[in-house]
Amino acid sequence: MRNLKFIISYKGTAYNGYQSQPGGNTIQDTVEKVLRSLLNQSVTINGCSRTDAGVHAIEFVFNVKYDEVLSSIGTDGLIRGMNGLLPSDISVVGCEYVSDAFHARFDAKGKEYLYIVDCSRVRNVFSQGLALSYPYELNIEKMTEAAEIIKGKHDFAAFCKAEAKEHLKSTVRTVYDIRIEKEGGFIRFYISGDGFLHNMVRIIVGTLIFVSEGKRSLDDVKSAVKDGKRDMAGKTLEPCGLYLNKVFY
Amino acid sequence: MRNLKFIISYKGTAYNGYQSQPGGNTIQDTVEKVLRSLLNQSVTINGCSRTDAGVHAIEFVFNVKYDEVLSSIGTDGLIRGMNGLLPSDISVVGCEYVSDAFHARFDAKGKEYLYIVDCSRVRNVFSQGLALSYPYELNIEKMTEAAEIIKGKHDFAAFCKAEAKEHLKSTVRTVYDIRIEKEGGFIRFYISGDGFLHNMVRIIVGTLIFVSEGKRSLDDVKSAVKDGKRDMAGKTLEPCGLYLNKVFY
Repeated sequence: MRNLKFIISYKGTAYNGYQSQPGGNTIQDTVEKVLRSLLNQSVTINGCSRTDAGVHAIEFVFNVKYDEVLSSIGTDGLIRGMNGLLPSDISVVGCEYVSDAFHARFDAKGKEYLYIVDCSRVRNVFSQGLALSYPYELNIEKMTEAAEIIKGKHDFAAFCKAEAKEHLKSTVRTVYDIRIEKEGGFIRFYISGDGFLHNMVRIIVGTLIFVSEGKRSLDDVKSAVKDGKRDMAGKTLEPCGLYLNKVFY
Repeated sequence: MRNLKFIISYKGTAYNGYQSQPGGNTIQDTVEKVLRSLLNQSVTINGCSRTDAGVHAIEFVFNVKYDEVLSSIGTDGLIRGMNGLLPSDISVVGCEYVSDAFHARFDAKGKEYLYIVDCSRVRNVFSQGLALSYPYELNIEKMTEAAEIIKGKHDFAAFCKAEAKEHLKSTVRTVYDIRIEKEGGFIRFYISGDGFLHNMVRIIVGTLIFVSEGKRSLDDVKSAVKDGKRDMAGKTLEPCGLYLNKVFY
């Protein structure tokens, strides 16, 4: 058996998220189908995380174990073959052999997400599905102050989808950094951490926007981070602005 | 009767071009349908030009005459109403009353097109449909030399779709300027002129790319511009990279 590590990029608009589903039409199902035909065997890929329907990935990592007796294709052949067979909204960026022990999810030390907001006053037809359309100004200074409160190790229960919490042993996570960058009419939020709860990035950015709008105060954000009260945080933003940007190993 | 000038932006991916067709699903059909319901009357819009299927517009201009007795809606109401009713890939950028004499096509003094090439080595899933994917390097210096030959007043017969030529009195046009800009992995070609033949921009950029690849020499380009021989120019590039950027009045 050999173990391969892949990096792929995908536009999630047309998919029901990453994770395999009985109905298919997920990133995992699509990739496994192509790998099955190239490796001449049934395979299951281990993704670094799940992404929701409509969420994108710039660098998503997965690993896959396969029996090399059934397939002699090398990494270059795999990259070319996959990019030839995959639909145009999924692309293989890299592929390398790794030790048997490597697991894309269990070995991940952290991740960085990117959330893009398009502040164009007029609906920008070219960013639809690729950014949240928010046709107003955002107060970067106020959002940066709120981001300072969110950074660090906290119980992020207030920043988690309600149904997801029940299955978790702990909702304590560490946010390493939140960078807010303005470029033209776009604002980009880069958020890195050791792990993320379901919807955590979309709620963090939603909270920063509520702070910009005056709907939440800095004290509300402190309380959200301290007491875990969901209503002290902001709303869950649309998935279309969210990108898994990097996985750290 | 009043005369309104509109500026719209659209992503052409899902449409059979600008110009109305019996089958519908064109930009013109879609816009006229929405205007009809807001103005309470049947209207025909005069577009500044035609764009092919898959071609985009950043600022497309049209005018429309309507009977104000049947409709009391103002320009602000029209912008809001249209942006509410139009699909998300068409957006109204501006709207103003103009003199009765104004005609979006006949009064246009010139236009600027933009052609975007994505030179990412790995297929960029986020630019699909919005740029030509060309995963190689382009020689900007050589292309700039060729662009200098193309600029100016010439018989552009070599840069025109064959079937389109038969209906034209003249294929002489003036290219005011060709600007080539590199930004990240993207190369942007801005081409302005007093008028453009069918496929002219896509063939000009195709010729520049052939020059970069060494498939055409500068002498070939001179000959294309002088003798109108189609095979001295380059190939017609895909529509997805093309944008109508601006119309001059």
